[in-house]
Amino acid sequence: MKSYFLFFVSACILVHFLVSAKYDPDWASLDSRPLPSWYDEAKFGIFIHWGVFSVPSFKNEWFWYRWKASKQADYVKFMEENYPPNFQYPDFAPQFKAEFYDPDKWADILQASGAKYLVLTSKHHEGWTNWGSKYSWNWNAVDLGPHRDLLGDLANSIRKKTDLHFGLYYSLFEWFHPLYLEDKKNGFKTQKYVETVMNPQLAEIVNTYKPEVVWSDGDWEAPDTYWNSTDFLAWLYNYSPVKDTVVVNDRWGSGDTCHHGGYFTCTDRYNPGVLQEHKWENCMTIDKKSWGYRRDSYLSDYLDMDDLTQSLAETVSCGGNLLMNIGPTHDGRIMPIFEERLRDMGGWLKVNGEAIYSSKPWTSQNDTVTKGVWYTSKPDAVYGIVLDWPPSNELILGSPQSTEKTTVQMLGYATMLSWKPNPTKGITVAMPTLNADQIPCQWAWVLKFKNIK
Amino acid sequence: MKSYFLFFVSACILVHFLVSAKYDPDWASLDSRPLPSWYDEAKFGIFIHWGVFSVPSFKNEWFWYRWKASKQADYVKFMEENYPPNFQYPDFAPQFKAEFYDPDKWADILQASGAKYLVLTSKHHEGWTNWGSKYSWNWNAVDLGPHRDLLGDLANSIRKKTDLHFGLYYSLFEWFHPLYLEDKKNGFKTQKYVETVMNPQLAEIVNTYKPEVVWSDGDWEAPDTYWNSTDFLAWLYNYSPVKDTVVVNDRWGSGDTCHHGGYFTCTDRYNPGVLQEHKWENCMTIDKKSWGYRRDSYLSDYLDMDDLTQSLAETVSCGGNLLMNIGPTHDGRIMPIFEERLRDMGGWLKVNGEAIYSSKPWTSQNDTVTKGVWYTSKPDAVYGIVLDWPPSNELILGSPQSTEKTTVQMLGYATMLSWKPNPTKGITVAMPTLNADQIPCQWAWVLKFKNIK
Amino acid sequence: MKSYFLFFVSACILVHFLVSAKYDPDWASLDSRPLPSWYDEAKFGIFIHWGVFSVPSFKNEWFWYRWKASKQADYVKFMEENYPPNFQYPDFAPQFKAEFYDPDKWADILQASGAKYLVLTSKHHEGWTNWGSKYSWNWNAVDLGPHRDLLGDLANSIRKKTDLHFGLYYSLFEWFHPLYLEDKKNGFKTQKYVETVMNPQLAEIVNTYKPEVVWSDGDWEAPDTYWNSTDFLAWLYNYSPVKDTVVVNDRWGSGDTCHHGGYFTCTDRYNPGVLQEHKWENCMTIDKKSWGYRRDSYLSDYLDMDDLTQSLAETVSCGGNLLMNIGPTHDGRIMPIFEERLRDMGGWLKVNGEAIYSSKPWTSQNDTVTKGVWYTSKPDAVYGIVLDWPPSNELILGSPQSTEKTTVQMLGYATMLSWKPNPTKGITVAMPTLNADQIPCQWAWVLKFKNIK
Amino acid sequence: MKSYFLFFVSACILVHFLVSAKYDPDWASLDSRPLPSWYDEAKFGIFIHWGVFSVPSFKNEWFWYRWKASKQADYVKFMEENYPPNFQYPDFAPQFKAEFYDPDKWADILQASGAKYLVLTSKHHEGWTNWGSKYSWNWNAVDLGPHRDLLGDLANSIRKKTDLHFGLYYSLFEWFHPLYLEDKKNGFKTQKYVETVMNPQLAEIVNTYKPEVVWSDGDWEAPDTYWNSTDFLAWLYNYSPVKDTVVVNDRWGSGDTCHHGGYFTCTDRYNPGVLQEHKWENCMTIDKKSWGYRRDSYLSDYLDMDDLTQSLAETVSCGGNLLMNIGPTHDGRIMPIFEERLRDMGGWLKVNGEAIYSSKPWTSQNDTVTKGVWYTSKPDAVYGIVLDWPPSNELILGSPQSTEKTTVQMLGYATMLSWKPNPTKGITVAMPTLNADQIPCQWAWVLKFKNIK
Repeated sequence: MKSYFLFFVSACILVHFLVSAKYDPDWASLDSRPLPSWYDEAKFGIFIHWGVFSVPSFKNEWFWYRWKASKQADYVKFMEENYPPNFQYPDFAPQFKAEFYDPDKWADILQASGAKYLVLTSKHHEGWTNWGSKYSWNWNAVDLGPHRDLLGDLANSIRKKTDLHFGLYYSLFEWFHPLYLEDKKNGFKTQKYVETVMNPQLAEIVNTYKPEVVWSDGDWEAPDTYWNSTDFLAWLYNYSPVKDTVVVNDRWGSGDTCHHGGYFTCTDRYNPGVLQEHKWENCMTIDKKSWGYRRDSYLSDYLDMDDLTQSLAETVSCGGNLLMNIGPTHDGRIMPIFEERLRDMGGWLKVNGEAIYSSKPWTSQNDTVTKGVWYTSKPDAVYGIVLDWPPSNELILGSPQSTEKTTVQMLGYATMLSWKPNPTKGITVAMPTLNADQIPCQWAWVLKFKNIK
Repeated sequence: MKSYFLFFVSACILVHFLVSAKYDPDWASLDSRPLPSWYDEAKFGIFIHWGVFSVPSFKNEWFWYRWKASKQADYVKFMEENYPPNFQYPDFAPQFKAEFYDPDKWADILQASGAKYLVLTSKHHEGWTNWGSKYSWNWNAVDLGPHRDLLGDLANSIRKKTDLHFGLYYSLFEWFHPLYLEDKKNGFKTQKYVETVMNPQLAEIVNTYKPEVVWSDGDWEAPDTYWNSTDFLAWLYNYSPVKDTVVVNDRWGSGDTCHHGGYFTCTDRYNPGVLQEHKWENCMTIDKKSWGYRRDSYLSDYLDMDDLTQSLAETVSCGGNLLMNIGPTHDGRIMPIFEERLRDMGGWLKVNGEAIYSSKPWTSQNDTVTKGVWYTSKPDAVYGIVLDWPPSNELILGSPQSTEKTTVQMLGYATMLSWKPNPTKGITVAMPTLNADQIPCQWAWVLKFKNIK
Repeated sequence: MKSYFLFFVSACILVHFLVSAKYDPDWASLDSRPLPSWYDEAKFGIFIHWGVFSVPSFKNEWFWYRWKASKQADYVKFMEENYPPNFQYPDFAPQFKAEFYDPDKWADILQASGAKYLVLTSKHHEGWTNWGSKYSWNWNAVDLGPHRDLLGDLANSIRKKTDLHFGLYYSLFEWFHPLYLEDKKNGFKTQKYVETVMNPQLAEIVNTYKPEVVWSDGDWEAPDTYWNSTDFLAWLYNYSPVKDTVVVNDRWGSGDTCHHGGYFTCTDRYNPGVLQEHKWENCMTIDKKSWGYRRDSYLSDYLDMDDLTQSLAETVSCGGNLLMNIGPTHDGRIMPIFEERLRDMGGWLKVNGEAIYSSKPWTSQNDTVTKGVWYTSKPDAVYGIVLDWPPSNELILGSPQSTEKTTVQMLGYATMLSWKPNPTKGITVAMPTLNADQIPCQWAWVLKFKNIK
Repeated sequence: MKSYFLFFVSACILVHFLVSAKYDPDWASLDSRPLPSWYDEAKFGIFIHWGVFSVPSFKNEWFWYRWKASKQADYVKFMEENYPPNFQYPDFAPQFKAEFYDPDKWADILQASGAKYLVLTSKHHEGWTNWGSKYSWNWNAVDLGPHRDLLGDLANSIRKKTDLHFGLYYSLFEWFHPLYLEDKKNGFKTQKYVETVMNPQLAEIVNTYKPEVVWSDGDWEAPDTYWNSTDFLAWLYNYSPVKDTVVVNDRWGSGDTCHHGGYFTCTDRYNPGVLQEHKWENCMTIDKKSWGYRRDSYLSDYLDMDDLTQSLAETVSCGGNLLMNIGPTHDGRIMPIFEERLRDMGGWLKVNGEAIYSSKPWTSQNDTVTKGVWYTSKPDAVYGIVLDWPPSNELILGSPQSTEKTTVQMLGYATMLSWKPNPTKGITVAMPTLNADQIPCQWAWVLKFKNIK
């Protein structure tokens, strides 16, 4: 703790330490902090993976590792065919130019998606920082390549142009940082890397960019005591400039994920399908196979709107948030196929957002009779998200129980729907017959129930 | 003719000249040739613009000209900001690597689009040839950049994997070829460029790749006598390896366009909206602003499926073919947004192709009462392509006149539709009420009429 | 001849053809032309090899051929180790930047060398032209790489700043020009390459740069009838802008070298050691192994001043001119090691030029008694160039026969030297004892004899 | 000290700390250490400046600073003319390829120079490390560019092939290291940079490469207490693997230079011309204007052998060592002009080394009567290095006083020279008359006196 402290002295305003701390640097205390409410209300965020891996833009963002550590044949072949033998990963950096990067335009697209927060990679496992970190000199976006504060410029645009919360992803470990590898070789009994790189960098990004999400990753090889995670979180919750609004995830050391921290991510693409006791997030990718943008992708690799609305429905019904990932290119663009998915998602949410934002899970998560119907609730209504239009227009539901006052409506369609109680349990709703010009949305439709049990 | 002849001696098999020629090198004779039937039956083709302009990939394929000849501010600024001052357009060539170029995959996507032919730029106004032309040494795709016969490789895949007809675009002039500029300066009284570059190249591509479309362009600055166009066409029609199946367009010299040659293109994006006497083609772009791929494009720049089905309906109804353009990237990819449009188009044609392929214009092209209904016909049926679903499900048509035997059906939907004659003229069709799970297609729907007048 | 003629029409002023021609296009007539006197008087020229080969700058200027045609292991390995597999020779061109090229500075160095003419490669076997040839579009120094008229800029500086005659080297053939290869395949019975590339280019450089040396090369694969050599020379001698002063060499077609043309070069580094009947030139290189600059050179690869003064002495004594080669770098520099040799040569010539410039061979070329003494003469003097200082200071010579009036002097040293006739034949000269501060030059010393037989 | 210590724990073998230390970390103690004798005996070393500055290779090795901090016009212009606007210094690194680097060949050249030690830049002010420093990740020669341990490979070749002592230059500060700049801003009251970069790096190079010279530089902005210099030196002298043989210079903090440390360098190109009390070194450059290789150099920028032998004579006579600098190219070559100077120096030393190696200053340093005569001595002889041959062959010297037994010889020349005492003081030596074939060396000549006073 002592050495860690040394680094923070410069970052923190000293007076903080004089006021009594709310949270102690242990999990019992840290886990007791209530999650700031904005996060659960937001439901839908955008994840952005951007880095030097966006230059080869091949296979995925684990390019360096798969090429050099796993030595996977396709990566090795790609490099052999396209680069000189003595070309190494860091030599890619000057080609990460971001010359088409227009943060205002990004903000516009992100806002149009209906998302309420975004999480951008500040640093991925490659160690490259998308801001000009003092602790990663000449291996960051200001010293090399873009020569621009990619983080700060997006933070500004997002805050100026949208109502999204700005969050940052940060990888605790780095595949190849020599000081990390040294600590690892020492059985994580030394903390050279943590003290001189990682802890200072976390302080840098929190103090500079004031992210409202700190999305930790790359924690799994070492215990949180190595990472000084509880120290960091205690500082973050007690003294940092975002102490009142920041949320964090659960990737703070081996054994912590799904057990400690803020909301739980458990695994990538976590989507349990049943209600969770603890707030959680389903981080997933539009490109099924990669977080970073990859040039070897075809249309079939991209989830379509049926897939995406289904993911949103399943996730929110079970108490989760959906964090949907896109990967920008090395020259700073969000490809039109991503933009299309984002704008389509926004179009759907414009009609159906009432069932998503600020909703709570209902007593049932999905219907007991008809598959593909997922529920959310608000104090005065229950929402059923119907993923497949019933062939006969007759939707038989097992979970909602009608009362005399029950009403059923489809979001985006004015007329009340007729319904009847089922013989034993549940109700059957007569879906309206809506032609192409009348239908309020595509892909999934939301029924709003009032006065049901 | 003499000097032109000299060059062709090596390209042609001499015996050709001994048989009696069907067509003379004059428009009267050449224009008398019937258009090979496959072309009119095909209706729908894909245009592909690919070249060194795909490297800067900025604004459009006229990059070199706008930057250097027009000196347009945005082009100049782009270069100033991203390249050293002494970087010139030809220096881009080594970066045109096409490392992701997979012609089999392209063939698969093109086939899926429902198109029946494709036209690829063999050479655009920049002069760069996508094949290893002897007459453009070190300024072609085999000597530089891709180091690959881009044309031949696609021709092979298309012929092996699809039923599409393979065609080639060729620019007669070159913005900056010094011999062309010299001829131009001489008032086109010399033909250095034509004799040593252009005519030999046309012979090269026809003899080597046997294209069934020769899509000429860049003709407008000089008369066809300068280009030796009628000589070339006489050879093409009489002796070339594609003499029986090849079609050409109308860009063979100033004053020829819309008057002579094979089918008429008249202008880019030509879409007259009324029936044409002569077979024509509407060449247009999915990216509204460019033929070549450009990185500065956003989703809103891409036509959507409503636009594209409308273009197809309007064009085919008035007797034209639609040639829809995509622009691949410098590294050889068809971007997913283009692939999506192509596959969506193919999906629509799978349901509605009956109204398109091998159809003929009907007596009316579009309906006299309801806007956005376009007609095609076959010997035993008339097709009405309905671009907008009628709000009341009641479609009032002025052009078709019913008989007692009249039947109306929607392609992709089995049940006969009910209809009634209008009080004075035409009929009113009751469109079926089709929910999301029943509707056979999106964007436009085709009514098939039998026994109408 | 006819087609060749066509191209020249534009280059020549027609009136020329109206005056009666002095020379016919046959060797008998052409060989009868007296060599303009400046050339024999000049004795010493600088050869400069510069081109795209200066980019890899490895092994020598035949890089492309050795790598791709001969597939020599060291070239192949160099490329495999340093470039991607699909990198080809023309991809080097954008790296030929010549950013340090300062023709005034070159002129200064060349002038300081004591040379009286220079011969610069306008085009080597790679086909790249160092001027903006219309007939090598996008494969020349104006369109690509330097984006500068390398030839014209040097011609201007040389003419403005020095008294050197400006000459150009031109390779008739090109290793890989597709039209040349086609002609070759046709047994040189077609002349596509000659008519559309080579002859026009020769006209271009003569008309544009008015070189006083046209140094032909790359002729050996075909007869002069293929190259139209005699036509060209007849034009050059009769009508060209340099008709009165131009000299050419002897490489005009297989079998011509050492037999026809202007002066004879016979072979590279031709240094016969005996008097020649016909004016000749010894073209050789300071870097023993290469004409183009190569990065894999060490000091031991460069001839030293003993070697160079020896070459000059041997060559001039036997009636030749010395054409000493340097290779500039891809970024436009004459390396200091070359500059040093040139300036040292100039220093030596400042003292001893009297024995070189405008001299004639003497009756003997080298001494019959003492090796390493080479003679030149002027009407009133004989010069003995002594390559090795005689150990005893006593120089015994067999060739000069003394008279009563004989005087002997060392150039650069005022005092008359004493001498005595040898018992039988020749004279013995007492070389002066000269310490480091007195000696007029290094490497070789010149004795000036008057009144000897 | 404590935190500094922490880093060293891992670098040092702990047992060292159990033996009693010879030297304390204060100047009084450190300065008391006798300089290992090899250094004074060596007299002549080669300095090598190599780094990322070798890529632009323009003006000199302060390129980054002059361009970006001083904003000197010529640097700014060079970048504007040759690079895109957003190109920054670290983007040069991938171009530092060292593909021609052949350490065995370097060793051969260095050995041939007659030098007895070499000092190579391990890190210059740019911060780039020529070895794979853990503390400069992705800003070093193993991670980027050469992808090779430039230091280690040369150390091996030098030790395997030569008798030179291997030394390393290390810059304490870095112009732009953000942690250094932070410490500087804090008035050097923090030591972030020293603790996390500099001290660990010094330990790395000493432990890994065991240099026998640690040539510190870049110290002047901060006191040695900031750099922990005395701690480092105490460790170096007491415990390091080179504790018995290492020598250091005097650049250990502001105010230390010329006062503390090992030998004194005082200033660059220090050449006081009078005897110094403390051992010193004259570090100077063959290229008058730069330490790093620069492409904008001409022959006149290189010192010639008269200059270099003069520098050696003046320096050694006054008790100094000469450290003569060369700059290799970014592709790993020692240019022939440097190789020539080095081999010429070696040739001179082969004849005259007796007067240099292991010599001591004499009572006089230079002669009182004739300028340009510099003295060294050995127990039984005095050597007079004569820079200019006396015009009359009569060398009048004021400093040596003859005795009856006095003998005078010229090194490399067998015959004893005659001499006579001067009327009042000193002696006059009759220099021999030596023609070109007899003279043992050029540039300077050494007289060896025995039995003089």
